[in-house]
Amino acid sequence: MDKETFAVGVDLGGTAIKYGICSSSGIIVEEFKRPTRADQPVEAILDDIAEAISSAIKAAQGEQLTVRAVGMGTPGAVNVETGQLMGNTPNFKHWKDVYIKRSLEARVNLPVWADNDANMMAYGELKYGAGKGAANVVCVTLGTGIGGGIIVDHRLFRGSRYAGSEIGHMSIDYNGRQCRCGGIGCWEIYGSASAMIEHYRRLKPESFIASTIDIFNAYDRKEAAAVAVVEEEIRICAVGVANLINIFNPEKVIIGGGVSEAGDWFVARIEAAAINLAMKAATREVTVMRARLGNKAGLLGAAAFALDQEGHA
Amino acid sequence: MDKETFAVGVDLGGTAIKYGICSSSGIIVEEFKRPTRADQPVEAILDDIAEAISSAIKAAQGEQLTVRAVGMGTPGAVNVETGQLMGNTPNFKHWKDVYIKRSLEARVNLPVWADNDANMMAYGELKYGAGKGAANVVCVTLGTGIGGGIIVDHRLFRGSRYAGSEIGHMSIDYNGRQCRCGGIGCWEIYGSASAMIEHYRRLKPESFIASTIDIFNAYDRKEAAAVAVVEEEIRICAVGVANLINIFNPEKVIIGGGVSEAGDWFVARIEAAAINLAMKAATREVTVMRARLGNKAGLLGAAAFALDQEGHA
Repeated sequence: MDKETFAVGVDLGGTAIKYGICSSSGIIVEEFKRPTRADQPVEAILDDIAEAISSAIKAAQGEQLTVRAVGMGTPGAVNVETGQLMGNTPNFKHWKDVYIKRSLEARVNLPVWADNDANMMAYGELKYGAGKGAANVVCVTLGTGIGGGIIVDHRLFRGSRYAGSEIGHMSIDYNGRQCRCGGIGCWEIYGSASAMIEHYRRLKPESFIASTIDIFNAYDRKEAAAVAVVEEEIRICAVGVANLINIFNPEKVIIGGGVSEAGDWFVARIEAAAINLAMKAATREVTVMRARLGNKAGLLGAAAFALDQEGHA
Repeated sequence: MDKETFAVGVDLGGTAIKYGICSSSGIIVEEFKRPTRADQPVEAILDDIAEAISSAIKAAQGEQLTVRAVGMGTPGAVNVETGQLMGNTPNFKHWKDVYIKRSLEARVNLPVWADNDANMMAYGELKYGAGKGAANVVCVTLGTGIGGGIIVDHRLFRGSRYAGSEIGHMSIDYNGRQCRCGGIGCWEIYGSASAMIEHYRRLKPESFIASTIDIFNAYDRKEAAAVAVVEEEIRICAVGVANLINIFNPEKVIIGGGVSEAGDWFVARIEAAAINLAMKAATREVTVMRARLGNKAGLLGAAAFALDQEGHA
């Protein structure tokens, strides 16, 4: 067995920066979280991330562990070679064309690797989780937005210019609402955590609900508005997942991100509805399952990717 | 240069069986067409196809050419190894689980290779046409139905069980109409040739229009119903193509099938609208173009695939 090595994994989300010290065998030694200031200028966000990484490195040193590299997942398309964000990221105000790799390397003095957050999640699930051993896998992250990571023939598929896998911006309503991405009727508009919260607030304007966890708790109490929101979420995600099954005929569809923390029953409901919608030939051997690494897949995938890139795997 | 070899290519469509004698360098020596009896039992359709192949072989013999193999594209998922159709084919009544390879080989006494029709089209465009040299390509066939052929990293992507690439059964309306495939709001319902004809008949119930060619001719005369139908077709196909751009970030999207015979202007209109809808990062280097082999791509691809499989390429 190879000697264990360590990296800091960072998962930049629309609401939180999750980060942790991860081992090459897929263990999170210690993990942390701080709010994302998504409306702040790029430099402020980079400073926040660098501060987070530095505190994790210090924590690792306290446990006699040497951090070899940093891996980070971010919303948006990333040129993996240069570590530059490419184009727009609808859930951030200024986070655009950022030289993530270079800017963070200057701040933390370690090799940094960046990729799209859903790709990092897929990498984590492929390496340590639900995707282990599968050839064709589609990962869906149901979070503030909806992202995707696609594995074709055991490898991460990124498209010609690192900009593929934007499954959350697949239109499921060609007469639908305008999306911040420039498209119309994107799955993300109807199926993201933000969409669920908005939908709930439309039904109960007086409520102070702040997260999908609150909605799922209310669902457990059979509260009418929460039931309506969750049932609609299942219906919408089933359409998105059925589309992915028809397009990719994957062995596995893995659902992660904050919304998936509702539990296995939620993913099983999406699976049943999606299999009902998808073409029979494509559903014969597909399994829709919850990300095995939960919402840690992005973190672990980012760390694993950085270690792999640096030859420390 | 290798010695030229010959195969019969067959393209089984919902309305016509197109077939021809094709050379390994991508030339159609002679081509033929007969109506598809899509509502007939499997054996009758197989007999029709075998009769078509035999007449093409005879025609080839008349020109001193030896046919080495037969390649056929069919709607539906096909297990390429066994040549069996897998599962349902909405536009045919009984065409289901057919042992295409085995049944035709017994009838025509030549090696037969079968694959999904849109895969064959993609193979043709990849080998001889618009896809030559490109690594990531999505082919769309706008015909009686809507099919897809996807090339990832220079190779045909078929999914885990040969059932991928069913892009026509990507829902673009999650509240939409029931599709014969079991899904809801499939692109095919709104964007196929059949959909255009239905739409036209709804607008002009007294008309005797029989094909999209008639609609495009009326469009050229600025006839109001035809303009409405064609503009709607462009709007719908732009949503479908934008989805594919966001998911695959391809270098090329190639549009073939009967509807694409409207001309380059039609595909250019879809391109402009799709690029407007798709995410900026994914559109930087994409070209949406008409299949260079026109509606011959399926035929040529099927023949080329059979020759390649038999080592006669």
